[in-house]
Amino acid sequence: MDGPETGDAFGALLQAGLQDRAATGVIERDDGLVTPHAAAGYFTAVDEWPALERTACERASGRVLDLGSGAGRHALHLQKRGVDVVALDPSPGACAVARAQGVRDVREAGIEDVAKLGERFDTFLLLGNNLGLLGSREAAPRLLAGLAASAAPGARILGANLDPSGSPDADHAAYQQCNKDAGRLAGQLRLRVRYRRLADAWFDYLLCSPAELGELVAESPWQLAHVEEDGAGYLAELRMRDRSTT
Amino acid sequence: MDGPETGDAFGALLQAGLQDRAATGVIERDDGLVTPHAAAGYFTAVDEWPALERTACERASGRVLDLGSGAGRHALHLQKRGVDVVALDPSPGACAVARAQGVRDVREAGIEDVAKLGERFDTFLLLGNNLGLLGSREAAPRLLAGLAASAAPGARILGANLDPSGSPDADHAAYQQCNKDAGRLAGQLRLRVRYRRLADAWFDYLLCSPAELGELVAESPWQLAHVEEDGAGYLAELRMRDRSTT
Repeated sequence: MDGPETGDAFGALLQAGLQDRAATGVIERDDGLVTPHAAAGYFTAVDEWPALERTACERASGRVLDLGSGAGRHALHLQKRGVDVVALDPSPGACAVARAQGVRDVREAGIEDVAKLGERFDTFLLLGNNLGLLGSREAAPRLLAGLAASAAPGARILGANLDPSGSPDADHAAYQQCNKDAGRLAGQLRLRVRYRRLADAWFDYLLCSPAELGELVAESPWQLAHVEEDGAGYLAELRMRDRSTT
Repeated sequence: MDGPETGDAFGALLQAGLQDRAATGVIERDDGLVTPHAAAGYFTAVDEWPALERTACERASGRVLDLGSGAGRHALHLQKRGVDVVALDPSPGACAVARAQGVRDVREAGIEDVAKLGERFDTFLLLGNNLGLLGSREAAPRLLAGLAASAAPGARILGANLDPSGSPDADHAAYQQCNKDAGRLAGQLRLRVRYRRLADAWFDYLLCSPAELGELVAESPWQLAHVEEDGAGYLAELRMRDRSTT
């Protein structure tokens, strides 16, 4: 037999979830760790979200770009509140689901393609730990520059992430040590989503502490303006540096 | 990173399930199909079982060998009813869990090692689709002979399985066609359990129709005496052929 088929596993999972909230795929890490991953999490109601995600949506202002929008739960919530929001996801299946859920402006693209949109945004929203889309110490500067190139004056990034340090899990601790030994940030995860026979391409997803995030953006057009923590989760606000005064 | 670690994934899943019934692993098929696999199914109460499993337990008599006993739910049920039952599972973790659940006589061995036990049994119980442990058209005769070598006079096999034919699922249909093209029985599955970083060795698990089972045992010391169907599931009773009259 041929093994998994490379394709839009994440999108297929969300499309299955549209019909059956119990649909469950797998997140596979490159050390072989498999974790069941339920579609239901992408279809949660506002009152089920982490409090910091509600906070972020309240603060999103102007023209908003929701990066890694998934099934569109955050974009839909903002749209209903009258916010001018564009949902962005590289998964064709996820985009189809977000449209089916009622999100009006959905674009099929990843964070690396934001500059190609040729538009300006006031708020970049990276919820559901999607600051992780910054990927790695190497990828982050390029991606942050791309967001800056599409930033309206006074633009902000409102991004959620998980601080991976202090995990009591032995597998996670070993993975982080392996990363550190290789000179990577401890929480740089190499992952793929699998759903039934489909497997996404492997991608990097970066869990980092607020301090690591601060270092990561130090040389970028952004500065870490504010962090609110809730357990291991946090919401970071980044603002464009004022170039006129530096 | 190193990918999954070969080990007792099934046992680790059941051991996790002992603490947390929500523990969930993955069954991976060699065509890449991944299916979440919950430990909870191994800890179900009698009234949650398929009716045919209760029927099988009522019919189990004499000294009983429960093959692929998992967390020991069937063995424990029989033991409580005063039946003389031995639970058999090749997974050290599963054996530990069955013992923790209160099963008194648990042996760490697979179906291929039954003859090595040097004991005689009146009933061989293969529930939870465990007729699938017959593996393949090639392996089944040897395994059936091994059971016969450990059979007391008048011994029976009470085995449950799933008829794979007529599955409406396109992936399953394609898998079965691939098997047929290669000369295998349609429902010969190559699987492994994964739990967190652990992956079991790949094993064959044979889903077959009652008719295929009849053909499979034709040249064996066993004959298919009785089949009860419930949807795609069925309970088969096999009896030792009476050699004196043939």
